[in-house]
Amino acid sequence: MIPHETIVALATPSGAGAIAVIRLSGADAITIAAEVFESVSGKDISKQKTHTIHLGHIVDGTKVYDQVLLSIFKGPNSYTGENVVEISCHGSVFIQQQIIQLLLRKGAKMAQAGEFTLRAFLNAKLDLSQAEAVADLISSDNEASHQIAMQQMRGGFSNEIAKLREELLNFASLIELELDFAEEDVEFADRTAFYELLTRIEFVLKRLIDSFAVGNVIKNGIPVAIVGEPNVGKSTLLNALLNEERAIVSDIAGTTRDTIEDELVIDGIGFRFIDTAGIRETKDVVESIGIQKTFEKIEQAQLVIYLMDSLKFQVSSSEFVVEIEKIKNKYPLKEILIVANKIDQLNENELQKLHQELETLNLKQIYLSAKQKIGIDELKNQLLSLVNTGALRNNETIVTNTRHYDSLLKALEEIQKVRFGLDNNISSDFMAIDIRQALFHFGEITGQVSNDELLGNIFANFCIGK
Amino acid sequence: MIPHETIVALATPSGAGAIAVIRLSGADAITIAAEVFESVSGKDISKQKTHTIHLGHIVDGTKVYDQVLLSIFKGPNSYTGENVVEISCHGSVFIQQQIIQLLLRKGAKMAQAGEFTLRAFLNAKLDLSQAEAVADLISSDNEASHQIAMQQMRGGFSNEIAKLREELLNFASLIELELDFAEEDVEFADRTAFYELLTRIEFVLKRLIDSFAVGNVIKNGIPVAIVGEPNVGKSTLLNALLNEERAIVSDIAGTTRDTIEDELVIDGIGFRFIDTAGIRETKDVVESIGIQKTFEKIEQAQLVIYLMDSLKFQVSSSEFVVEIEKIKNKYPLKEILIVANKIDQLNENELQKLHQELETLNLKQIYLSAKQKIGIDELKNQLLSLVNTGALRNNETIVTNTRHYDSLLKALEEIQKVRFGLDNNISSDFMAIDIRQALFHFGEITGQVSNDELLGNIFANFCIGK
Repeated sequence: MIPHETIVALATPSGAGAIAVIRLSGADAITIAAEVFESVSGKDISKQKTHTIHLGHIVDGTKVYDQVLLSIFKGPNSYTGENVVEISCHGSVFIQQQIIQLLLRKGAKMAQAGEFTLRAFLNAKLDLSQAEAVADLISSDNEASHQIAMQQMRGGFSNEIAKLREELLNFASLIELELDFAEEDVEFADRTAFYELLTRIEFVLKRLIDSFAVGNVIKNGIPVAIVGEPNVGKSTLLNALLNEERAIVSDIAGTTRDTIEDELVIDGIGFRFIDTAGIRETKDVVESIGIQKTFEKIEQAQLVIYLMDSLKFQVSSSEFVVEIEKIKNKYPLKEILIVANKIDQLNENELQKLHQELETLNLKQIYLSAKQKIGIDELKNQLLSLVNTGALRNNETIVTNTRHYDSLLKALEEIQKVRFGLDNNISSDFMAIDIRQALFHFGEITGQVSNDELLGNIFANFCIGK
Repeated sequence: MIPHETIVALATPSGAGAIAVIRLSGADAITIAAEVFESVSGKDISKQKTHTIHLGHIVDGTKVYDQVLLSIFKGPNSYTGENVVEISCHGSVFIQQQIIQLLLRKGAKMAQAGEFTLRAFLNAKLDLSQAEAVADLISSDNEASHQIAMQQMRGGFSNEIAKLREELLNFASLIELELDFAEEDVEFADRTAFYELLTRIEFVLKRLIDSFAVGNVIKNGIPVAIVGEPNVGKSTLLNALLNEERAIVSDIAGTTRDTIEDELVIDGIGFRFIDTAGIRETKDVVESIGIQKTFEKIEQAQLVIYLMDSLKFQVSSSEFVVEIEKIKNKYPLKEILIVANKIDQLNENELQKLHQELETLNLKQIYLSAKQKIGIDELKNQLLSLVNTGALRNNETIVTNTRHYDSLLKALEEIQKVRFGLDNNISSDFMAIDIRQALFHFGEITGQVSNDELLGNIFANFCIGK
């Protein structure tokens, strides 16, 4: 099953930078590298220790390609478990291509997406959920998703599953042993202890399954619909929220500001803001498509922010109230948050009047001035209160992967069957089948049970070079 | 002059990839890294050997940022000559930023553009022309510019200059010694040998100065104007030229096809194709702006390709001839190449007639079919014949840098003054001044003579992280 070719790929992002790293992995990695590398001090790199770095040139005959640093990792003490060589070259795309082509000519094969990590899995350097965490880690773009991926990569999730699996396996063996002595009516497996184990497994599985809701939010962000007309202060509000969060990173290259209108990370939790035009301006148009669209967007959201200009509200408060009531009646179960902006332009009396009128709506309200940065913290807290970050704070295992979620659901189903069997004195041979099935689903998560198709699907989502 | 802060920057291209490399350099590089790095085997990295790699985690208190590989280089055996630590982390932008911010909090400073290479220069790991070659190497996008940068980085250029400088310095010392004994009328410097040296220096300087024309072409590409109406086969022709050159790299990420209409690399030499609409279609319009524009573009070009559809030529040959004559008369000194396309659609007789008519123009001609890939090699050879690649093939030093070119010109001027002085028996004290001036200009190239402003200008063109 483990492939024997030596693979090569660019491990750093494509494009020009100061340096680029080209990675080779396989039995012949060091031999191939030795063919094209000339150490400045004349060292033979095939005789060097693992985890050492060597300065030299990449050459092909008399042609010198680049001055590089070459790092040697000898299997099994490497990422993939095979011999690995990393070539740190100058960052021009031309040089990267030339060196990769040279290595291909010397017998290396171009790596597939995720092939380095696949090999790490096949060589038992990582289990499957840890391998998946590597991809999550690379794509993590906020604190929470990074933390979860990191925990999963370090084995948090696998350890929890593996422990349960082992305990269950012990009972499975004992129950299957009973089957061999079926005619003697013995009980090797202590039914009380077994019952206790099933309860514990069920509890853990349910907690993991429940955590998927949080995990999903963390991985994909919380959809928030903003109902608000133009000029009501949406951009200013998003910038005010953003400022405090991202100012610290603004001097580091790579921070794109393109998507800030749509996505925002607050305390490590992603929020996706869905802009709607509001339903007020379309009220004159019969059967308006506009209203329909706004409602569709509200449908997708987990929270609806009704953003209003406090000054305008004073002039035509009844229109606002009508609109809000409309949304409230259509979505009685949706969380709706009234955000009254521009309160810095109201005097004490006006503010009090605003409070009184809005309180009759019986909805959560935030009063702020995006421009003057008044009330921003209250809004942030309100947004964060949507997410149950308790599990995150307590460093509990959180499921973010749909594949894991499916396997956990299936495992729970089987465990419940086993318990039902135990409650109803069903014959051990039936129960043994259900236990085996539960074990199968546990194994799917960690990769003790896997097949080529499954692996293909998982690793195809990786980037090349990892 | 050598700064004492420890600097940090991302060394790999920004964006997400499998891995990213963060580089620290300075006296405290290892100390700072040790504060945030926990080796998996509990090693104290401040006690590890140079050029070794260590697996561990980047941590801040109880918070784990990433699993990383940490490479240690102890000064002076590093790129900058200082202590250097490279952290190879997972490639998410989020992780990169988190780790860099952590290192900044621990006392590192954000590196300026080119600051690592500047330090290498200040620590005498590279001379100035070698440092400049690093930037050239990173931006090299074809064989020839890569080869020249590589040669310069390995000291080819500096060595040549340094050797001449030393010989000249010897003579300068002897002549200045004579001045001390002026009243005794002694000659320490052998005038014949000195004359021979000046001749040799002049010869080398002239060769280097001449090479700048080739160097410039190699660095910036050769501008070629294509005069041709739409549908004459320009894209097909560029693709045919391109196909043979780039097919080999097409399966490697990073090859953009966006600019192929404009730039093409043939045998390692870049050509910039400037599209013009032709001057025929605008002939009805009095004082047309179009004609003006076409002429402006031809003006910029080193070669004019007149690309024609051979089928159309048969129908209205006189119009073509008029147009070509117009260009020829306006630019008697420009190289003009007639390229007759679609010859696969002519029979033997028609082809012969075409030849006869075009030969009367007394210009170089290429007959081809871009679609059938007939005659492409002839065109390539014709294009390459524009470039004197002899020097490149013979591995001679080629000047590509305008700064070097200027210094060489000034040095030559001073050397010629010295020779004039020698020829006319001018007093040694005047000659000594000219020699010192020539030495100054040599020193400018290698950086033995430099100032903050010059260094600022040079390194500002680098990317951050190098």
